[in-house]
Amino acid sequence: MDRKDATELILEAKRQEGLTFESIAEKVGRHKAWMTAALLGQHPMSAEDAEQVVDILGLDQEVTAVLQEIPMRGSLDTDVPVDPTIYRLHEVIQVYGTTIKALIHEEFGDGIMSAINFGLNVERVEDPEGDRVRITYEGKFLPFDWQF
Amino acid sequence: MDRKDATELILEAKRQEGLTFESIAEKVGRHKAWMTAALLGQHPMSAEDAEQVVDILGLDQEVTAVLQEIPMRGSLDTDVPVDPTIYRLHEVIQVYGTTIKALIHEEFGDGIMSAINFGLNVERVEDPEGDRVRITYEGKFLPFDWQF
Amino acid sequence: MDRKDATELILEAKRQEGLTFESIAEKVGRHKAWMTAALLGQHPMSAEDAEQVVDILGLDQEVTAVLQEIPMRGSLDTDVPVDPTIYRLHEVIQVYGTTIKALIHEEFGDGIMSAINFGLNVERVEDPEGDRVRITYEGKFLPFDWQF
Amino acid sequence: MDRKDATELILEAKRQEGLTFESIAEKVGRHKAWMTAALLGQHPMSAEDAEQVVDILGLDQEVTAVLQEIPMRGSLDTDVPVDPTIYRLHEVIQVYGTTIKALIHEEFGDGIMSAINFGLNVERVEDPEGDRVRITYEGKFLPFDWQF
Amino acid sequence: MDRKDATELILEAKRQEGLTFESIAEKVGRHKAWMTAALLGQHPMSAEDAEQVVDILGLDQEVTAVLQEIPMRGSLDTDVPVDPTIYRLHEVIQVYGTTIKALIHEEFGDGIMSAINFGLNVERVEDPEGDRVRITYEGKFLPFDWQF
Amino acid sequence: MDRKDATELILEAKRQEGLTFESIAEKVGRHKAWMTAALLGQHPMSAEDAEQVVDILGLDQEVTAVLQEIPMRGSLDTDVPVDPTIYRLHEVIQVYGTTIKALIHEEFGDGIMSAINFGLNVERVEDPEGDRVRITYEGKFLPFDWQF
Amino acid sequence: MDRKDATELILEAKRQEGLTFESIAEKVGRHKAWMTAALLGQHPMSAEDAEQVVDILGLDQEVTAVLQEIPMRGSLDTDVPVDPTIYRLHEVIQVYGTTIKALIHEEFGDGIMSAINFGLNVERVEDPEGDRVRITYEGKFLPFDWQF
Amino acid sequence: MDRKDATELILEAKRQEGLTFESIAEKVGRHKAWMTAALLGQHPMSAEDAEQVVDILGLDQEVTAVLQEIPMRGSLDTDVPVDPTIYRLHEVIQVYGTTIKALIHEEFGDGIMSAINFGLNVERVEDPEGDRVRITYEGKFLPFDWQF
Amino acid sequence: MDRKDATELILEAKRQEGLTFESIAEKVGRHKAWMTAALLGQHPMSAEDAEQVVDILGLDQEVTAVLQEIPMRGSLDTDVPVDPTIYRLHEVIQVYGTTIKALIHEEFGDGIMSAINFGLNVERVEDPEGDRVRITYEGKFLPFDWQF
Amino acid sequence: MDRKDATELILEAKRQEGLTFESIAEKVGRHKAWMTAALLGQHPMSAEDAEQVVDILGLDQEVTAVLQEIPMRGSLDTDVPVDPTIYRLHEVIQVYGTTIKALIHEEFGDGIMSAINFGLNVERVEDPEGDRVRITYEGKFLPFDWQF
Repeated sequence: MDRKDATELILEAKRQEGLTFESIAEKVGRHKAWMTAALLGQHPMSAEDAEQVVDILGLDQEVTAVLQEIPMRGSLDTDVPVDPTIYRLHEVIQVYGTTIKALIHEEFGDGIMSAINFGLNVERVEDPEGDRVRITYEGKFLPFDWQF
Repeated sequence: MDRKDATELILEAKRQEGLTFESIAEKVGRHKAWMTAALLGQHPMSAEDAEQVVDILGLDQEVTAVLQEIPMRGSLDTDVPVDPTIYRLHEVIQVYGTTIKALIHEEFGDGIMSAINFGLNVERVEDPEGDRVRITYEGKFLPFDWQF
Repeated sequence: MDRKDATELILEAKRQEGLTFESIAEKVGRHKAWMTAALLGQHPMSAEDAEQVVDILGLDQEVTAVLQEIPMRGSLDTDVPVDPTIYRLHEVIQVYGTTIKALIHEEFGDGIMSAINFGLNVERVEDPEGDRVRITYEGKFLPFDWQF
Repeated sequence: MDRKDATELILEAKRQEGLTFESIAEKVGRHKAWMTAALLGQHPMSAEDAEQVVDILGLDQEVTAVLQEIPMRGSLDTDVPVDPTIYRLHEVIQVYGTTIKALIHEEFGDGIMSAINFGLNVERVEDPEGDRVRITYEGKFLPFDWQF
Repeated sequence: MDRKDATELILEAKRQEGLTFESIAEKVGRHKAWMTAALLGQHPMSAEDAEQVVDILGLDQEVTAVLQEIPMRGSLDTDVPVDPTIYRLHEVIQVYGTTIKALIHEEFGDGIMSAINFGLNVERVEDPEGDRVRITYEGKFLPFDWQF
Repeated sequence: MDRKDATELILEAKRQEGLTFESIAEKVGRHKAWMTAALLGQHPMSAEDAEQVVDILGLDQEVTAVLQEIPMRGSLDTDVPVDPTIYRLHEVIQVYGTTIKALIHEEFGDGIMSAINFGLNVERVEDPEGDRVRITYEGKFLPFDWQF
Repeated sequence: MDRKDATELILEAKRQEGLTFESIAEKVGRHKAWMTAALLGQHPMSAEDAEQVVDILGLDQEVTAVLQEIPMRGSLDTDVPVDPTIYRLHEVIQVYGTTIKALIHEEFGDGIMSAINFGLNVERVEDPEGDRVRITYEGKFLPFDWQF
Repeated sequence: MDRKDATELILEAKRQEGLTFESIAEKVGRHKAWMTAALLGQHPMSAEDAEQVVDILGLDQEVTAVLQEIPMRGSLDTDVPVDPTIYRLHEVIQVYGTTIKALIHEEFGDGIMSAINFGLNVERVEDPEGDRVRITYEGKFLPFDWQF
Repeated sequence: MDRKDATELILEAKRQEGLTFESIAEKVGRHKAWMTAALLGQHPMSAEDAEQVVDILGLDQEVTAVLQEIPMRGSLDTDVPVDPTIYRLHEVIQVYGTTIKALIHEEFGDGIMSAINFGLNVERVEDPEGDRVRITYEGKFLPFDWQF
Repeated sequence: MDRKDATELILEAKRQEGLTFESIAEKVGRHKAWMTAALLGQHPMSAEDAEQVVDILGLDQEVTAVLQEIPMRGSLDTDVPVDPTIYRLHEVIQVYGTTIKALIHEEFGDGIMSAINFGLNVERVEDPEGDRVRITYEGKFLPFDWQF
């Protein structure tokens, strides 16, 4: 069994149990976005979290060990996503990538937003003209800092 | 003169004048991210905005008309960006793309975050362990809605 | 069982039952193009629709739940389709893509045709010199509308 | 001077004259979509049409000959378009390509919609919930017809 | 069973029976190139042809229905073929593609050779300096013919 | 001046002189397809042919030497051609490539059709239902022949 | 069983029998490079050779027929090989490809080295500073020879 | 002036002087293949060689310095060469790459043929059935040798 | 069983035994980086090493022979790695590749760092501001040395 | 003038002045690798450093401002480098990428080596069997650290 097999088992069990990612996150006491990513194979879990997940979903104990391994990350098969919901994120980079780079540099100087010391959220913003999706990325600013 | 030529002239003049994107945005009275994108060739400007920009940067009047045209959008030359600051946004999609899709669907049902009825912001979040970059995407939720 | 497995079962059963996509659509009371897309794994079905489809095709009850899940969309394996019938749609974009963009902008201003609030149809247009295929895309116009 | 140079001259002159594609089409008496495509370098013009266009736009006589040549077609630089307005057409193929193929075959049998004996239109459909863009492709059905 | 499975069964049976594509074509009374393409999964067969093929090759009756389905066409896995025999056809396009386009346009005007109303042949041309392979493509000329 | 520059000069002069590829070929006494390929930069010319071409088209003498050089062959910019007239040749390989390979092997055994000891022709086949384009490739059969 | 399956069986048996490609070639009486290529699925074998190979490796008789089929050639999965030993051959083309082309043309005129009427060898050249690998390609010169 | 400019000047002068790569190599006293590669921008020259080359070709003294710089190597624009003469080398890797790897390993063990401590030659092998091109690669065998 | 199967068995057993790559390396007496690469399928092992590994991990004896074969190297599926930990190495080449080339040439002249006569290490550098990862590549300098 | 133009001017002047990257670095008082990267367009310089560089190389004052801008990073045109000296770095990732990932995780846990808080060095290691190139990457370990 590898991590991909584990993810498939998780998704199958989640459907049969009628659970949501958010409800699993709440039971385990983790942020819903982190937990969703972990369940989709993008983060290792601690032994306690893994045991709880296996318990909640009624999975085989073998899964517990697999969930604790540091995975080979990457949740998509292609550089350019085809699914419309995910493609919009790619479109934002194509259209606004140089804008975001320019604004990070104006505000912080030369460097990047870390995608490692990082978190993200997906929220509903109520709006009379139609609710809005707010996606927030927040990562530590890392200045280019030559050390040798 | 096409839009790409106009962008080059703008960047040259901006450097010579020692201006920031944010200061130009303030003078014209537009959001800094929208203005940066527009100056980088990703949005058409209204006649008034274009005239102000040409005025602020001391550009030739010919630029005014070019800035009002709806551009062929796309600010990057490649599908996978090479510049580290921009690459991190791509990395987020590769690692968290399926997570974001799952959370949008759990919260809103089947649909997407619009990248057209949309805005974004880049902010500093002060943090004693190192300030953080917060990038917020906010777009109208569009449910898949078959109409025929 | 994932959505791909479900699609294969549907196609196998459809062949054995000698049914058409249109006839299934009629029995369920949905537009033929929407139903075809849904059967090919591109749209989630409501519980009622899924039950009817499973019933009509004589499939296992397990399929019912799978058909209600929001799928990872994308019906092709490649960016450029190889099958001649599908390639012609790609050719139209290569030859007329900039034309369509120009005409949308002349008529509506800056924005896009939504592919989400959208429907399509495929019809026969009788013609003495040979009947014609009419493919109609119809999507809500979404103006670029910066909101932040 | 090649066709690409001619297209650039046309777009420059069109902006300076403040003309629309549709108004040029009307003056010459051709369909707006055909004329837009021709002006964007995708169709050869007859000598009369080319002379009229050169006249309307105040271009050099040398352009007249260039516009009559059969062009190397293809209006985009990439297989997957980046501009959001054009990308939506690509997205439709990715999501609905197999659907359209299935419906053409159900209605007509084995064959294709010609993209050569073909026309297209872009129209506004008024709608209280927001006007809609209707794009119609219409091409002769060509049955696979082995002749040897 | 899908069309790919059917092709594999056909090739396995053909080897065991020691048959050639040409001999199968003769028995069924179809052109050898059409029949080869159909056996390789590129054309649907009529019910009669499919039954004969299944009979000649001693295949399971289930294959009969599969062979009558309109396939997803495309016999190669890559854009640029690697096998030397097939690559030479690609090389001809790379070297002579613009030549063929120019000659079609000089002879017929603007348009294409149809690959749908089409047939091909592969023949031996005897030659004392070494026999030659003659490959003939013959397709209906389709003039670009704007209809809307 | 390199070969590409020479090709551009040739095409410019050909348009101004109102000549066809075929008429140039006839004047020089070469096959029209060979001459078209040579004028488009795919074959070196003999000194006599080059002088005649330069004479017919009224080009600078410097071109004569350039036309005699063995070119870096390849007339297209991409692996998959976008122009519809050229694309149909690619489509034939995608759909019928394995068919042609199978028929060459059945007729000749293991080997290829040479694309070097080779010629091609483009002809009109009159047909009451619409004239047809016949493209003939003819190359020496080269058996795989291990020599070491 | 297809040719790929046969190759896997051959490699498995070769390992278990502790044989080298060269020793198999010697037993069958063929050149070691040809035999290696044939065992790796790149050449069809005669009935006698196939029987001997099956005998030497103790394979099932079914393999005999598969080895006699003309294969779909191509031993690599990618255009640019990743394995360092094979990559060096690609590097030679990248660095010296234009050199080899220039020298073939200087010595022979316009044409190619055939890769069909061809053989190759891999040898050890003893050298006090470290033995050297000599790879020799030898193919018939084929002059570009237009025949139509 | 960069190395690419220098190469163009060299090729232009070589044509005007009517020189061959081999004759330049002889005058300078270097191997013809090395000299051809150096003239095509793939090797730096010593000061003496560069001066001689500049002298023989009648180039500007500025070229002397440029020829002595270590170049960014790579003589082709694409991974898969399109020119038929160069493509055959790529085809050999596709068909015989795993064969060459197997034979190097059988003869030398684990390692590679160096493409750095390396030379190559292109020769004519006279043959009554048609002369043959012999291309010899010879590089030092480098065993995988872990040193840390 | 091929090398890939062996790697999967190794990783499965390593997880069940709760071993680290480093501990296995120590038991066998090899450098931890070499051993990790070998366990991940990138180096052949000696008979003794293979037997020890099989023993330590409790694997089937069949694995012993597979581990001694020279593998087809390449541990990634793509040219551009997606996993963030591995991507950073790619980013270093994109940003600093020309820098490293320039410094190798300044220090050593024209040549390369061998990746065959090579070793690497991954170490922790303690640092009060956060420990650092030091990756050291060390390979023999190979001067470009033309030998023919 | 953009950053690319500045790099070209720098390289031209460096050649004419006969300077090395290291000597420029020493004069300015920066690490040689950082300075080389900055001169090759991969880092912004401080005003003082830029002035010194312009002074040392005798460049136009306009360059000073350009060198202070934060560049669009990326020193290569392709994902897979073709130049042999740079390719070896890519090969190391292909062969040892998963090894390095495994060792980072064993030593530090889940996270990455930063390529931003980072430095590198290129050194000569004297060795009687041939000097060795040592390339050291050193970057801060960044643990995956979810913060939201």
